[in-house]
Amino acid sequence: MVQSFNPPVRTLMGPGPSDVHPRILEALSRPTIGHLDPMFVGMMDEVKKLLQYAFQTDNELTIPVSAPGSAGMETCFANLVEPGDKVIVCQNGVFGGRMKENVERAGGTAVMVQDPWGRAVDLAKLEQALDQNPDAKIVAFVHAETSTGAQSDAKGVWELAHKHDCLVIADCVTSLGGTPIRVDEWGLDAVYSGTQKCLSCVPGLSPVTFSERAIDKIKNRKTKVQSWFLDLNLVMGYWGEGAKRAYHHTAPVNALYALHESLVMLREEGLENAWKRHAHHHQALKAGLEAMGIGFVVPEAERLPQLNAVSIPEGVDDAVVRGRLLNEFNLEIGAGLGDLAGKVWRIGLMGHSARAENVIFCLSALEAVLGDLKAPIRTGVALAAAQSVYSAG
Amino acid sequence: MVQSFNPPVRTLMGPGPSDVHPRILEALSRPTIGHLDPMFVGMMDEVKKLLQYAFQTDNELTIPVSAPGSAGMETCFANLVEPGDKVIVCQNGVFGGRMKENVERAGGTAVMVQDPWGRAVDLAKLEQALDQNPDAKIVAFVHAETSTGAQSDAKGVWELAHKHDCLVIADCVTSLGGTPIRVDEWGLDAVYSGTQKCLSCVPGLSPVTFSERAIDKIKNRKTKVQSWFLDLNLVMGYWGEGAKRAYHHTAPVNALYALHESLVMLREEGLENAWKRHAHHHQALKAGLEAMGIGFVVPEAERLPQLNAVSIPEGVDDAVVRGRLLNEFNLEIGAGLGDLAGKVWRIGLMGHSARAENVIFCLSALEAVLGDLKAPIRTGVALAAAQSVYSAG
Repeated sequence: MVQSFNPPVRTLMGPGPSDVHPRILEALSRPTIGHLDPMFVGMMDEVKKLLQYAFQTDNELTIPVSAPGSAGMETCFANLVEPGDKVIVCQNGVFGGRMKENVERAGGTAVMVQDPWGRAVDLAKLEQALDQNPDAKIVAFVHAETSTGAQSDAKGVWELAHKHDCLVIADCVTSLGGTPIRVDEWGLDAVYSGTQKCLSCVPGLSPVTFSERAIDKIKNRKTKVQSWFLDLNLVMGYWGEGAKRAYHHTAPVNALYALHESLVMLREEGLENAWKRHAHHHQALKAGLEAMGIGFVVPEAERLPQLNAVSIPEGVDDAVVRGRLLNEFNLEIGAGLGDLAGKVWRIGLMGHSARAENVIFCLSALEAVLGDLKAPIRTGVALAAAQSVYSAG
Repeated sequence: MVQSFNPPVRTLMGPGPSDVHPRILEALSRPTIGHLDPMFVGMMDEVKKLLQYAFQTDNELTIPVSAPGSAGMETCFANLVEPGDKVIVCQNGVFGGRMKENVERAGGTAVMVQDPWGRAVDLAKLEQALDQNPDAKIVAFVHAETSTGAQSDAKGVWELAHKHDCLVIADCVTSLGGTPIRVDEWGLDAVYSGTQKCLSCVPGLSPVTFSERAIDKIKNRKTKVQSWFLDLNLVMGYWGEGAKRAYHHTAPVNALYALHESLVMLREEGLENAWKRHAHHHQALKAGLEAMGIGFVVPEAERLPQLNAVSIPEGVDDAVVRGRLLNEFNLEIGAGLGDLAGKVWRIGLMGHSARAENVIFCLSALEAVLGDLKAPIRTGVALAAAQSVYSAG
């Protein structure tokens, strides 16, 4: 007979989910009400407003999709790409590849602009691709590559795309709440994110926002969106401002309580303070790791503070170390994905995980395991290096 | 400044979400762990086994889709329908219409078999449609029509479909856990359900199960599934038994804790006991409503015990009554959908809502409001009628 499941209490410092704040877990378990209840509809309006703040946008269509980030990605591509559309996809990690899949499954053609994994999108290459493909309709790129920790210049992408009259789709799954995103200022047309990264919320929802230009394209499609569930023409009827809500699907009520709470907390802290907090703890983690002799994959200027991809020291077995961290320290760090599997670790400092306790604990556990395995690292220096960042304030 | 959201405590007797058991809300808020954590993977295996029990199937591919029931529906159609496929869709309410949308968006052709709303699928009409469409590949029907409360003969549908070498897709959103479903015995090939109905769980997940015949068709498609997120060829890599789990998307970890707990509770109660409980409280509610003079939409032999669609008494304003029940009694009952809007109420007795407290409370509140509005009902008799069912045991 299967028993109730009691999960262990982990410290989550992988690529997400990150540590969920207790206030958010508590909000999650508040009494369920109906998805058409006027009180719930009022809360939905607040979620929209709070998401507009988080995304720094006035876009009316700013909502959480009722499914994880991958479904947010698909919402953008399935709605904006019509059969035959050419889409320029900048790939510098795993998620650019997934974008290509999305374009093709929506009947479009993907023109790939490849950059090395661990580097930002090269704007010169993008410009060349735009020049060579004057019929392209959309540029898609990953603002914060979760597989490598590289951050790209969103405003730069938009400027080029705009000159060529293309819409811009941006993957901000790992950036929202952790590093600056300014949707309106940067001119992004369709942006998707996730709840389980820098918002400290549970996984399962995908915040998205769409510009008026994007909505025009969606409303004037020649063919129906191939997904009924993700068709924004229908979803807008449920999330539409003021209007009578039309039943579309049953919203994940409790998950939305949690997202609401996480956004209230972000508002309380202030977006700029949250960005600063992520950067600050990144500096401490970096000081500690570098003191040990562990290096970063991404050049400093292109690095995301909240996702630290670091090279696994020579001769060290990836899975053994992660296994010991998990079993002996209840600490999760992330493995490499795709081409980087076995070569890097991804250490997340996202949302509630971006705090001194986690940085100190992670450095300490890593040093203990690597020291025990006689890995080629310097021991006894990491904690002091991190502490000196904290002492400097 | 937006504050934390504290929902009212409602009694949920609409078409779902139903009342969520406190054990399940508590499970939902347990500490989040990683979606690739070995402890989580172990829990996923248990969820699969428990779902096999709930569906009465040995199907290997029995999993919860990481999104609401509408996405479960789309998972079935997007994976099984290939461009050009002819699908016979039996429609006897709202959800058959949504099936048609799904068929067409997957590039298929829907042959509609229409039955009156509030009636079961007419097998003679289905047989005629199968005879007239020997090239049909799939028959789709709604086992439990949430919009009307009608239950159809799943085994009968399968026997006809099987004779014509068609796969069967069944909507069991409202039936799972509330009224008998025997997937293997009935030969159903693709079945989807929801968590927020008779499983008493929060909304947001969609349990599905696929037969070997269905998997063969999916594995041998000529074209890719148009949805990346719902492509079972990829999802199977994450949920596959024993195999090394391949990252596909980030599972909604906490929602899966809740589903696990709800299925453990179903196992503890026993599936047959759960079916009996739903039927028993339906008898009491029915006795009370009929004593008041309120009649059912669906003929008795075709009625779902857990979803009671009843005619709104002559001259009574639907919205006024539901509004007063919600505001004065914190009680939610459901409105009619589509053609039945304004004409019927849908009173749910699903999962944790199927208990005597709810039946008595609902009858009492309804009588108070309708009495106050001087509606043409008999007062002072409903509670005794319901009690007599309970006294009889």
